[in-house]
Amino acid sequence: MTKQYHDTILSDAALDQLYNHARTYNGWLDKDVSEDQLRAIYDLMKMAPTSANMQPGRFVWVRSQEAKERLAECASEGNKDKIRAAPVTVVIGYDIDFHEQLPWLFPHTDAKSWFEGDEEGRIEGAKRNSALQGAYMILAARAQGLDCGPMSGVDLDQVTGAFFADQPRVKADWVCSIGYGDPNTIFDRSPRPDFERFNSIA
Amino acid sequence: MTKQYHDTILSDAALDQLYNHARTYNGWLDKDVSEDQLRAIYDLMKMAPTSANMQPGRFVWVRSQEAKERLAECASEGNKDKIRAAPVTVVIGYDIDFHEQLPWLFPHTDAKSWFEGDEEGRIEGAKRNSALQGAYMILAARAQGLDCGPMSGVDLDQVTGAFFADQPRVKADWVCSIGYGDPNTIFDRSPRPDFERFNSIA
Repeated sequence: MTKQYHDTILSDAALDQLYNHARTYNGWLDKDVSEDQLRAIYDLMKMAPTSANMQPGRFVWVRSQEAKERLAECASEGNKDKIRAAPVTVVIGYDIDFHEQLPWLFPHTDAKSWFEGDEEGRIEGAKRNSALQGAYMILAARAQGLDCGPMSGVDLDQVTGAFFADQPRVKADWVCSIGYGDPNTIFDRSPRPDFERFNSIA
Repeated sequence: MTKQYHDTILSDAALDQLYNHARTYNGWLDKDVSEDQLRAIYDLMKMAPTSANMQPGRFVWVRSQEAKERLAECASEGNKDKIRAAPVTVVIGYDIDFHEQLPWLFPHTDAKSWFEGDEEGRIEGAKRNSALQGAYMILAARAQGLDCGPMSGVDLDQVTGAFFADQPRVKADWVCSIGYGDPNTIFDRSPRPDFERFNSIA
């Protein structure tokens, strides 16, 4: 029987660590992030749901100075130094041909056939679901006591060429630094909307 | 000074509730979800990061029998009864003109001007970031002791017409049921990939 947590609300400390006090950082303490930590993040994020378990995200975890330099070359002026200084920056891409993996990722049924011949639909699904995976990753990193700095200011075609040249059906979509945030590099918290502003109950 | 959680790893129980033991449900116990619970979910999810704090997601929380019926009409055959039976199903949409809100959402700088005249870029940003918000929502619901059932099997144009007719610049993107999952309505857990399969370290 599957384990359930009905009406179990996480502690305030956990909710603060994940959501309420966590911040986006623009600079990092001089403290490394290990490969084991990256694997722990992936082992959490992969458990969260994607449509038909398609898991379309493809991730390059940039840790070496050479690769950081390669990624910085693809970034807007304001992001170059951030990427050079971060312990790790993850390139989040998506596989347009994720459906080739569905026979083993979603063995309940023939889900591959739903996507064959529909490249436009696959791109839409791959983008939406790899974005979900990126959000699961941000919260998984925070759950491991790390901080994140997501960025969209990169030239995506250039990043695709620099990091997915060996996977011609994969496109880069955004990048996210991970490390121990330097508290001197955060902005004031931007305002958050009241429920009424962008929500309704029908 | 902002609060930090460096190297604080959430308890196994919390990680299991959020990621490892949580499951996607296809049916629901006969137990209501209150408006206060929905507001608690939103108050968490809105704290997580979106690009330039754009918060492009627009959410309709479908609770009444009338609105459930209206949404079920837009769903594929297999999803109609799921929507009718769920205590709540959230319609996740995105606002193509989210940039109009940036003067108050991102007051540090004139971010609105980055997006003016670039509708294609806005749609891309709105889709990516509203997907992030949807993932933050799924984990926030789980953090509140609730379960989720995300679905993409709906006619999005029809959903847009049925739920965002009063907001002509908003498009529906996917839907997600929220409630107390019935343990008899889950599939066997689909396989999850090893790190090596879809990741590399550079």
